[in-house]
Amino acid sequence: MIQTIEASPDEIYDIELEHSLLEANAKLAKENRILLDRFGIAAIDVMGAIGSGKTTLIGRLVGRLKDQFGVAVLNGDATTSTDADLIAGQNVPVVQIATVNGCHLDANLVGKALRKIDLAKLKLIFIENIGNLICPAEFPLGSRARVVVVSVTEGQYMVRKHPHMFLGADLVVINKVDLAAAMEVSVSDLAADMHKLKPSIKVIPTSCKNSVGLDELTSCLLAV
Amino acid sequence: MIQTIEASPDEIYDIELEHSLLEANAKLAKENRILLDRFGIAAIDVMGAIGSGKTTLIGRLVGRLKDQFGVAVLNGDATTSTDADLIAGQNVPVVQIATVNGCHLDANLVGKALRKIDLAKLKLIFIENIGNLICPAEFPLGSRARVVVVSVTEGQYMVRKHPHMFLGADLVVINKVDLAAAMEVSVSDLAADMHKLKPSIKVIPTSCKNSVGLDELTSCLLAV
Repeated sequence: MIQTIEASPDEIYDIELEHSLLEANAKLAKENRILLDRFGIAAIDVMGAIGSGKTTLIGRLVGRLKDQFGVAVLNGDATTSTDADLIAGQNVPVVQIATVNGCHLDANLVGKALRKIDLAKLKLIFIENIGNLICPAEFPLGSRARVVVVSVTEGQYMVRKHPHMFLGADLVVINKVDLAAAMEVSVSDLAADMHKLKPSIKVIPTSCKNSVGLDELTSCLLAV
Repeated sequence: MIQTIEASPDEIYDIELEHSLLEANAKLAKENRILLDRFGIAAIDVMGAIGSGKTTLIGRLVGRLKDQFGVAVLNGDATTSTDADLIAGQNVPVVQIATVNGCHLDANLVGKALRKIDLAKLKLIFIENIGNLICPAEFPLGSRARVVVVSVTEGQYMVRKHPHMFLGADLVVINKVDLAAAMEVSVSDLAADMHKLKPSIKVIPTSCKNSVGLDELTSCLLAV
């Protein structure tokens, strides 16, 4: 009983995906990367759905690392400073990037944010992308690694449903694993979906509530 | 320590929000509505984040209603037919709308999908939007009501963080309330955030696992 229709590249609503736009973004992403490399800074682009736990996770990582070297956070957040406020309590430089109606960060906005902070004092920058498993994949930001956070509370099919996003990841975090049993979601099946898509990918199960996986995640991020 | 930058309307990456594009969509949405009204069909636009439980919720509602009158489902899903497959087991007409890299449905795609099904046999159509709490708000589809599903597993701040989306809702569902205690999320605080934003809005807590709130939700949808 299922019929299918598919958006075609000539739909008027696909203007947002215009090749020229993506090319312009890619060029600015390279410029961001050159700037970051000049200062020896690793930027980590943290992507994932709304409510996947990106902010809490970044907060925990910042807490573990900020006494070792300079850490800053760029928080993409459509309208509010809720996430930035949560991180700023840690007393590290935070730039809130308000995308207003935009559903992803882009290299232009990140470039502007980088000009707001003193890069000479930093070694690591977390960039929290907007909660979305589709559009951010198209827009590299100049980061050294892209991390995708998927929460067990989103159900069993999130990796299968968003191949493009997960294929572009350098590292995948399966978060809120303390709720896996209550959600009747299998963490190992989620990891298996991921390895089927990209056999070489590192997958780390985490729980900020029980501090599961945070040591391993910290080590991995220090190695990028 | 927080600094802020904000995307401005002249950013090159805001092309997607061009006024002309939104106007074209609004015109097509009106055409969809006229078509649906001619057949006496109520279309319900079900929006919400990735993993908020839209598909399962729609499946439950379809199961309750399909023996009373004709029900169909349009499933927005970027690349896979996972959601459509889940619904099609109920033996009702289903159209999968593959947006490919698009992060929201639009009136054009919905109009095409409506031409795929026999409207004369229907009284209710559920339109499952793409998982996203930002862009779908800008794109009316021609539905009679817009429902936003927020899950307690997304945390406490989802309503506050997405005012534009929730302001545009006719009905809000707080889903997966069986997990509220484990998530340490207050359902009443979420509802209070919603009523602060839009005092007149109906808010229904639901759990598909425990069949909480489904009677009330069904009644509300039949009254639109």
